Amino acid sequence: MMTSSYSNSPCAACKFLRRKCNQDCIFAPYFPPEEPHKFANVHKVFGASNVSKLLNEVLPHQREDTVNSLAYEAEARIKDPVYGCVGFISGLQRQLLGLQKELDATNADLIQFTIQGSSSLGLGHVDYSNGFYNYPSNFEQ
Amino acid sequence: MMTSSYSNSPCAACKFLRRKCNQDCIFAPYFPPEEPHKFANVHKVFGASNVSKLLNEVLPHQREDTVNSLAYEAEARIKDPVYGCVGFISGLQRQLLGLQKELDATNADLIQFTIQGSSSLGLGHVDYSNGFYNYPSNFEQ
Repeated sequence: MMTSSYSNSPCAACKFLRRKCNQDCIFAPYFPPEEPHKFANVHKVFGASNVSKLLNEVLPHQREDTVNSLAYEAEARIKDPVYGCVGFISGLQRQLLGLQKELDATNADLIQFTIQGSSSLGLGHVDYSNGFYNYPSNFEQ
Repeated sequence: MMTSSYSNSPCAACKFLRRKCNQDCIFAPYFPPEEPHKFANVHKVFGASNVSKLLNEVLPHQREDTVNSLAYEAEARIKDPVYGCVGFISGLQRQLLGLQKELDATNADLIQFTIQGSSSLGLGHVDYSNGFYNYPSNFEQ
């Protein structure tokens, strides 16, 4: 039976750093050799040493999310060196403000329609409560 | 006339790195000595060397925004080592989706009120167009 050459390949981090990839390599589970850009980006923005420190600081089950969020931030910083993913945050905040304004305006329209709707049904404008037809107070007689 | 001691102080970066702060220091305009945490955070997350490289890559007028976005990302990563500011992005995206759903529902209500409003005024249900009173087609005679 053939042994998969994949399992013997160094991870993307060790390949990039030209070092031996051991079984206890902190990067190996999160930087597979077929995704070389993931490590290259993270290394360029944060530095391999900082990434390694961070992975050792978080719990093992949190490492995948940590690497993915670092990779996301790194890619954003490479695409936009000035704002990185903070530019994306600003964009989302602008969208939220716009949507909130739109919602407020739509709610105001809805309230207006509710008032107009009840008035067109005679509610609040024409008083039938005493059994007689009375002109509403704001009706010109 | 006294010379301000401030202008002779090394910037927060040079103080942190224990090096002489020259007039051409790339960090000095963006890391004043009275904000030591700003540099400490950025250094911890990105590394001084990466920050220096990045500042040299962007145009001089973009450097302040670059430093501020790096400081924002660094602070977020220190507060939340697993998700950093990507956690904030996810939160904003969730808020956006929620607001969009609310807006869709409010718009649907508004359309409903518009239809009900026009029907309560007799529009579309009673036909006066030929001068005679006609029962609408959906009215049981």
